[in-house]
Amino acid sequence: MKKIVTVGEIVVEIMATETDQTFLQPGLWAGPFPSGAPAIFISQVARLGHPCGMISCVGADDFGCLNLERLQRDGVDVSAITISGDRPTGSAFVRYAQDGSRAFVFNIPHSASGQIGINAAAEALLAGADHFHVMGSTLFSKQMIDVVKIGIATIKKHGGTVSFDPNIRKEILDAPGMHAAMDFIFSQTDLFLPSGPELFLFAKSSDELAAVDEILGRGVAAVVVKKGSNGSVYYDRRASVAMPAFVVDEVDPTGAGDCFGAAFVTEWLRGANPAEALRFANAAGARAVMRNGPMEGASSRAEIDAWLVSAKVKPEALA
Amino acid sequence: MKKIVTVGEIVVEIMATETDQTFLQPGLWAGPFPSGAPAIFISQVARLGHPCGMISCVGADDFGCLNLERLQRDGVDVSAITISGDRPTGSAFVRYAQDGSRAFVFNIPHSASGQIGINAAAEALLAGADHFHVMGSTLFSKQMIDVVKIGIATIKKHGGTVSFDPNIRKEILDAPGMHAAMDFIFSQTDLFLPSGPELFLFAKSSDELAAVDEILGRGVAAVVVKKGSNGSVYYDRRASVAMPAFVVDEVDPTGAGDCFGAAFVTEWLRGANPAEALRFANAAGARAVMRNGPMEGASSRAEIDAWLVSAKVKPEALA
Repeated sequence: MKKIVTVGEIVVEIMATETDQTFLQPGLWAGPFPSGAPAIFISQVARLGHPCGMISCVGADDFGCLNLERLQRDGVDVSAITISGDRPTGSAFVRYAQDGSRAFVFNIPHSASGQIGINAAAEALLAGADHFHVMGSTLFSKQMIDVVKIGIATIKKHGGTVSFDPNIRKEILDAPGMHAAMDFIFSQTDLFLPSGPELFLFAKSSDELAAVDEILGRGVAAVVVKKGSNGSVYYDRRASVAMPAFVVDEVDPTGAGDCFGAAFVTEWLRGANPAEALRFANAAGARAVMRNGPMEGASSRAEIDAWLVSAKVKPEALA
Repeated sequence: MKKIVTVGEIVVEIMATETDQTFLQPGLWAGPFPSGAPAIFISQVARLGHPCGMISCVGADDFGCLNLERLQRDGVDVSAITISGDRPTGSAFVRYAQDGSRAFVFNIPHSASGQIGINAAAEALLAGADHFHVMGSTLFSKQMIDVVKIGIATIKKHGGTVSFDPNIRKEILDAPGMHAAMDFIFSQTDLFLPSGPELFLFAKSSDELAAVDEILGRGVAAVVVKKGSNGSVYYDRRASVAMPAFVVDEVDPTGAGDCFGAAFVTEWLRGANPAEALRFANAAGARAVMRNGPMEGASSRAEIDAWLVSAKVKPEALA
């Protein structure tokens, strides 16, 4: 099996318990949950029994412990996750508005996550990897952009592949150098995993099919558009497959896109056909929204397989 | 009235809702509460109607807003509190053990609090101040130690006084340069406000009276030992006064020592006699523990005065 490596922020997530709760006065919060988009992604990959590792950094505090232990228990190779003696583990407070939108207070660039670099352990992990996954949220500093570039270059040098989930949060989109970094990573991407309108980040067209044509024309091998409750669509130069979402009761959307991406990338690397991979990934995403907490809804392969054969959940691929 | 200025960390505090809750798995937390030992201190000074200001820095986030608005509403001169465009507002997660002890996960030195410096606004605030209060918790970096030294030097140059609450958290006591910094500040202290065993930080003796003699012999004008539910004791070269604590139902001890200190310093600067000042400060501390949240129990002068005349609460000074 092809080993998947990702890099990026590890945080504890502290979640508002009430809709429309604010950051400006006391309320009740649930946490700390292990989190960080690339950490959620790699936790889901590991839970599928797929070999994987992560390059990151946590603080020498209980929040670091919590995350490290969780990833290790899931089966992630944590040999390239360092412990900062100085910086605290990153954190993200999240609250939800009535309309389903989220707002955050982050501590990431100046947390232990800001200390991520390519040391000998990270080099060794990359040397043994076949695929590198990049989250846009990880590009929060010049140093992180450089780390991601090294990861891509190492993987590409020995014939590996790159997936890219732009995962843009409005708080970091306008950071200096961000657009250039996104463009570079896009130019190295084999599998592109935008959520909804993120499809248009790298295309002039505002029409989905035309934008996909542009993107495939720029050398991307496959595009998967994540549409939440509207399912997902796969495109490559030969075909497209749309797969409706499973209908489930949403408890917490956080991490669902990351779990979807992890499941799709894993199936894609295993050579599954696009319809199978989409259906499996939709199931991973659907199961993720049914649990509170960013990576609490990450499922094992056996759990997803069992769920997929149950009578209630059988969406069919559309034309 | 003599204007009081302090300097140091401003944080949001996130408080465990259950005794023996851990930082290692999800639970329920209450917050964000405005906090930071020097911020609690100066909030209590302001609520007593005494002129005061603070030198600090918060992040350009809702947690910074929350703190700034609170201090401003209390009446603190916030002209020397800057807003970092880069660093998040500091944070402190606190949990409580069965035995009443507390444990923390902090983000302070690399938060906006770590950006505190002496700019023109801070110089102006110090130039108009008569008294400078130092919290030991503020000495979390070499830069902060330098800032505190400038504050002390400025106040002393125009004949002002210094109070020092060692307020040592075990997490920072062994930081490089900490002991030397503590010794220097102690050498400049007019009013020393240790909690219990902190009395012995600057004395060879392990006996209270002998330690007080040593401390007064080193140039400190007055010592007030805070003993929580055992009350407080005042010492100067001429006299000592012990004042029992008010008996109240403790809801949350956080911030009680800071409120006590603020009330005592304020009364001391107003020329109250030691017994009056202790009784007033004990009342401020007692009222602080009756409310959840670090500075939620800070009282106004009118509230304390009304409470002191109520029949139930009349401890008498001991010999």
